[in-house]
Amino acid sequence: MRHAVRSLCTAFVGTCLLAAWAAAAPRARDLGVPFDGTPGPLNAITDVAGVLVGHTTLISGSGKLKVGQGPIRTGVTAVLPRGRDSLLDPVFAAWFSQNGNGEMTGTAWIEESGFLEGPVMITNTHSVGVVRDATIQWRVAHGTADAAGYFWSLPVVAETWDGWLNDVNGFHVKPEHVFHALDTAHAGAVEEGSVGGGTGMICNGYKGGIGTASRRLDGKDGGYTVGVLVQCNYGTRDNLRIAGINVGREIPAPEPYVFIPSDLAEHGSIIVVVATDAPLLAHQLKRLARRVTLGLGRNGSISGNESGDIFIAFSTANPGAATEGHVADLKMLPNDSLDPVFRATVEATEEAVVNAMVAAHDMVGVDDHRVIALPHEQLQAVLKKYNRLANVN
Amino acid sequence: MRHAVRSLCTAFVGTCLLAAWAAAAPRARDLGVPFDGTPGPLNAITDVAGVLVGHTTLISGSGKLKVGQGPIRTGVTAVLPRGRDSLLDPVFAAWFSQNGNGEMTGTAWIEESGFLEGPVMITNTHSVGVVRDATIQWRVAHGTADAAGYFWSLPVVAETWDGWLNDVNGFHVKPEHVFHALDTAHAGAVEEGSVGGGTGMICNGYKGGIGTASRRLDGKDGGYTVGVLVQCNYGTRDNLRIAGINVGREIPAPEPYVFIPSDLAEHGSIIVVVATDAPLLAHQLKRLARRVTLGLGRNGSISGNESGDIFIAFSTANPGAATEGHVADLKMLPNDSLDPVFRATVEATEEAVVNAMVAAHDMVGVDDHRVIALPHEQLQAVLKKYNRLANVN
Amino acid sequence: MRHAVRSLCTAFVGTCLLAAWAAAAPRARDLGVPFDGTPGPLNAITDVAGVLVGHTTLISGSGKLKVGQGPIRTGVTAVLPRGRDSLLDPVFAAWFSQNGNGEMTGTAWIEESGFLEGPVMITNTHSVGVVRDATIQWRVAHGTADAAGYFWSLPVVAETWDGWLNDVNGFHVKPEHVFHALDTAHAGAVEEGSVGGGTGMICNGYKGGIGTASRRLDGKDGGYTVGVLVQCNYGTRDNLRIAGINVGREIPAPEPYVFIPSDLAEHGSIIVVVATDAPLLAHQLKRLARRVTLGLGRNGSISGNESGDIFIAFSTANPGAATEGHVADLKMLPNDSLDPVFRATVEATEEAVVNAMVAAHDMVGVDDHRVIALPHEQLQAVLKKYNRLANVN
Amino acid sequence: MRHAVRSLCTAFVGTCLLAAWAAAAPRARDLGVPFDGTPGPLNAITDVAGVLVGHTTLISGSGKLKVGQGPIRTGVTAVLPRGRDSLLDPVFAAWFSQNGNGEMTGTAWIEESGFLEGPVMITNTHSVGVVRDATIQWRVAHGTADAAGYFWSLPVVAETWDGWLNDVNGFHVKPEHVFHALDTAHAGAVEEGSVGGGTGMICNGYKGGIGTASRRLDGKDGGYTVGVLVQCNYGTRDNLRIAGINVGREIPAPEPYVFIPSDLAEHGSIIVVVATDAPLLAHQLKRLARRVTLGLGRNGSISGNESGDIFIAFSTANPGAATEGHVADLKMLPNDSLDPVFRATVEATEEAVVNAMVAAHDMVGVDDHRVIALPHEQLQAVLKKYNRLANVN
Repeated sequence: MRHAVRSLCTAFVGTCLLAAWAAAAPRARDLGVPFDGTPGPLNAITDVAGVLVGHTTLISGSGKLKVGQGPIRTGVTAVLPRGRDSLLDPVFAAWFSQNGNGEMTGTAWIEESGFLEGPVMITNTHSVGVVRDATIQWRVAHGTADAAGYFWSLPVVAETWDGWLNDVNGFHVKPEHVFHALDTAHAGAVEEGSVGGGTGMICNGYKGGIGTASRRLDGKDGGYTVGVLVQCNYGTRDNLRIAGINVGREIPAPEPYVFIPSDLAEHGSIIVVVATDAPLLAHQLKRLARRVTLGLGRNGSISGNESGDIFIAFSTANPGAATEGHVADLKMLPNDSLDPVFRATVEATEEAVVNAMVAAHDMVGVDDHRVIALPHEQLQAVLKKYNRLANVN
Repeated sequence: MRHAVRSLCTAFVGTCLLAAWAAAAPRARDLGVPFDGTPGPLNAITDVAGVLVGHTTLISGSGKLKVGQGPIRTGVTAVLPRGRDSLLDPVFAAWFSQNGNGEMTGTAWIEESGFLEGPVMITNTHSVGVVRDATIQWRVAHGTADAAGYFWSLPVVAETWDGWLNDVNGFHVKPEHVFHALDTAHAGAVEEGSVGGGTGMICNGYKGGIGTASRRLDGKDGGYTVGVLVQCNYGTRDNLRIAGINVGREIPAPEPYVFIPSDLAEHGSIIVVVATDAPLLAHQLKRLARRVTLGLGRNGSISGNESGDIFIAFSTANPGAATEGHVADLKMLPNDSLDPVFRATVEATEEAVVNAMVAAHDMVGVDDHRVIALPHEQLQAVLKKYNRLANVN
Repeated sequence: MRHAVRSLCTAFVGTCLLAAWAAAAPRARDLGVPFDGTPGPLNAITDVAGVLVGHTTLISGSGKLKVGQGPIRTGVTAVLPRGRDSLLDPVFAAWFSQNGNGEMTGTAWIEESGFLEGPVMITNTHSVGVVRDATIQWRVAHGTADAAGYFWSLPVVAETWDGWLNDVNGFHVKPEHVFHALDTAHAGAVEEGSVGGGTGMICNGYKGGIGTASRRLDGKDGGYTVGVLVQCNYGTRDNLRIAGINVGREIPAPEPYVFIPSDLAEHGSIIVVVATDAPLLAHQLKRLARRVTLGLGRNGSISGNESGDIFIAFSTANPGAATEGHVADLKMLPNDSLDPVFRATVEATEEAVVNAMVAAHDMVGVDDHRVIALPHEQLQAVLKKYNRLANVN
Repeated sequence: MRHAVRSLCTAFVGTCLLAAWAAAAPRARDLGVPFDGTPGPLNAITDVAGVLVGHTTLISGSGKLKVGQGPIRTGVTAVLPRGRDSLLDPVFAAWFSQNGNGEMTGTAWIEESGFLEGPVMITNTHSVGVVRDATIQWRVAHGTADAAGYFWSLPVVAETWDGWLNDVNGFHVKPEHVFHALDTAHAGAVEEGSVGGGTGMICNGYKGGIGTASRRLDGKDGGYTVGVLVQCNYGTRDNLRIAGINVGREIPAPEPYVFIPSDLAEHGSIIVVVATDAPLLAHQLKRLARRVTLGLGRNGSISGNESGDIFIAFSTANPGAATEGHVADLKMLPNDSLDPVFRATVEATEEAVVNAMVAAHDMVGVDDHRVIALPHEQLQAVLKKYNRLANVN
């Protein structure tokens, strides 16, 4: 049934269809997976005001791989920190590489300047370049030149590898797909699973993709929101922990489940975007980025050699901070108030990964490679065995 | 009963008494806590051939704090990578700071040179200096001068804060305590719990201290050993996960348990030493050091703001690699063979923390502050509730 | 006369013409600029055996800027560490960002793995993406799949900004230009000045571009070679020091010299590639990369805010080191033997920048922007005033 | 004559004598060494309001080395960022290691928190520990406990090695010497040369020690001040450049000059402290710290393997920024306004090193090792030969 909806998803899927689907699809909490902390209203990165997310999902063709023709199972995801102001008003940001077998362009300037200019883009490994240059094109078309009359840009584009399902050497992502993801980025519910950059991804032995979650801090802790979005493509079934339980080992794997060969198990990666409205400076956001690892640890990751585990964190506070030519007035949450923000980051990361897996559907790609989605009922059965299944409303 | 043994532990406790006690004390596996992977024979960092561990434990006095007099609950732990050759034959090494609210001296040179020269020392926060200079003294006394006829040294000394139990401003660690830990460092079983640098430590709301564990890789993966030693003083009871279960929340806390005030909960830290005989270069050992975070993530850590979570990893392979004046012949395990080593590091870290907590005993320190040890039976009861208690031989 | 040769340089200039020109053109030493140390036979990065350099130079059009049409003053430069084996046999490598206002893709994996896989590509800021994806395409076309039967890549592509002379928003670099630079990469003399990625660059107020230099170590120091290639586009005339003299301030600037506006002065960057055959590991190559800054310091750089000063260093020693599946045998030059290598890196960097400036010619680009080349006779006059002009053979 | 004054300098020299001497002693500019930029009134780090500097200079004994007895040629230097408020009101700070063959404690917390708490202390290599613990003692004695009623500290202590002149293994620096440097720290002129931590240092083949310089920015650039203090002990005579000239090679070296053996030439280091009142955040101060390398590059440094080239930068702006428990209001100079600050850092570093060498005097230490000071007249003669001697008032 879920597949039926997916079958509508050809190239250039609009957000309406997906939104309708997303509303109906259960998320990890709906299944009774227990998590700590209090999510925001959407339990999504878009709970941080101003953050927009857009996807272009490219799904077409089937059967034998013909390089340049397909089958195609890929896409682009765009995260805009300040909505349409993102190009003109940078956000404080920082990044961290837990295992650098991957790409995130633009990080040298984030590290140097403390700012993220423009969106965070995520796609497949072989399309980072086209997405990067097209993002500059989009900026030139939509932004205004700087004071010196020219455009200049170091876009942030990250990737994970989808070559098991997608004709990755066919280079099917084109500039118009990048523009579409940027132009259709929206607030509200975020499409999860096999969409956007996450379309062809595999995570912990099951179908992966895009996932998101958020935490709302107590008023006494400032009432800030932390949102996380992941494009998850990492890990092995053996290591997978959900709610502290090694569910990957316990879920039976009868035919027709056809798992990917074990030697491909760690060819994935995970890109994590952390957003918050807490007034954090660049060096504090680096601390958030480093906490992502703790969330992945809860899910059993060992950060395999071939996994590009690269994280970026930004704060939507302090608008105008990067304005040239005058001393800026800033707000900063003191370091000794960060523990609730750290906790939120760890918890939202843990949940976003499970959300990505829960939202994904079985997919058949190049050469009829099949990747099954995490089976919901069996997940629940294992959690119940360990008395870890939460009551579901 | 455990306390009775502890009461023998006055200043300058020899290793014999502690060894006898250690042999009798249960470790986490003995209680049925489940862990992944296969430990070495000792399930200790000393399973890595050549690694020696020595402790000086300083316990004396009771009652009101009189700065300079006590009560004293502190000590020094020494880890020698290559036994007595440690000063003359550096090991490849790297370090990582997950949260730098702590001290590890000597790291600039490790980062630059790729080598650790001499031992890793661990003590309390206010005694890093005396331990550092005394380690140089010990080197001058025991090592030989270099070719230019002089001694020179950048010792590695790390710390966690024990001021809740110990007269930390009394500066009770003296050079002779440093020499003792170095001189009595030994192979074989490692004393755990409230010993050495870990004497006055608190971890996840319970009594902490020194813990260790190891993993032996399959022959097909090279048969290498990874050993971990922690001085753990971090975390909160609320976040504590053992075997994936939030045991800290579930264990009842009746009187006379007197927990530390919540505002002290994150004044701790964790120092982690990872040793392996796998032939890893410096940049690969940094990868190991970064995996420690994943192990702490399994145990629920959020790396609180006030926690100094600093890790060091070294390889005992490639003896003679740092010999001056000629091109060295080295062995290197390729990156694509590292996953079993990464997994071992994560697993051994997870277990070493629990071992530290299981081995610790209740302690009463300055101003009659009491910290209880993790109650074994109640831990087992919680694990059983979640069907997570392993069969114990 | 030099200009006459340049006028032949339209798109897709073959290396023959440029090589002929290069042979005739004076370099900094030919003018009597004094430098320390002993260069290799070519005084070029190609003195390191196996290193190949290829350029695609795109020069066409004149007059008013029409975005998408021109004028075009840009290109691509390719540096192959191990010649045609570069894709199959990675080199130990490291990178360093002195000021990260720029892009170098692929660095997360260099940092993680210690290896550079494939070439180092350099182009203009807005073409990093196309060069990146095209390099993957080239790899797929020319390399072989890995053991798992698939291609995967994280190419290293760096950039500096040429929008003062070039229609940078026209995105004129195409995949075929990337292939050309890779396919025509060659040993022997390296074309310098306004060629390849350096075509439209400006350095220290004068025309910049590609420069190179090398140092041959004494036999007692191992007889190794260090080669440096720069794409230089940084700095201000006021800060420029050559041979320790502030020549930028002293060279008169009469009409018709039309300098770039001061507010563009620091919109440049410098990419530096350091190659050596000394057997250095990744962490040692990072040390080399950091020494590049000292060479730039000699030339007066302040690493302005808008300058992307990003460096990469690799060693061609240890072929086969990255071979999967077995423990590698390596050679390592000990740390205490590195001073001559450090000195060579500093000296060759200093000289390569001056070589780039000396080799460049006046260029007129978009909107008739003119950038003059460093005038040779006036440079000599200033050096003579300070008794710094060396005897020229 | 200068030596006669020095002969008064026994242990615990008060600042009065040195201040009198300092007033009379020529500095580099007084000799006609040309530098770029405009210094502050004192041309010292103390031009940054609030910065205090104190020295304890320990000079006693002569003749053969008797470990533990002497001869003693060492000391301690204290730099307090905010005067007496330094312990209660941290400053934004960052550090950078150009070559980590040295120690600077406390850096993990600076990196993590973005703040420097307390002073920067500099001493000899083997006394870092005693200075560290004594700084905590001083804090406990002079500061107030934090909200939780306890003291806790991660002092910043750096070092360079003085074992060629000093009985470094005698551990002659004691807590009272640390207290003295802290207690006598003062505004106004800074004693330079063989004082404080710099007492026994050697730099570029000549006597080194403490040096300082400053730059005052134009009003249009904000009118900020940048001050630099170095403890310089690095380099070789062969590489030394002053005003761009290789003066080390040109100054004749007749008897009775007895230079240190070449194999000791790089056993030194340089610690550099950069202070500014410009409102810079932590990540911007790291940019300043990295510019120090460019200043050393101007003076010819190659950052030799055995040189610990470690730098720290802080901003005295934003008092109260680290106050716990509430959101702080901050000021930040935008990145695009940093070039004048970068330039000032480079220039002040270049000058501070030369000031240290010019201020130093010949010294005879252990085993009658003699290190001569840079001979002023011969320096002037070389600069004149190259038309580089500035007019002196």
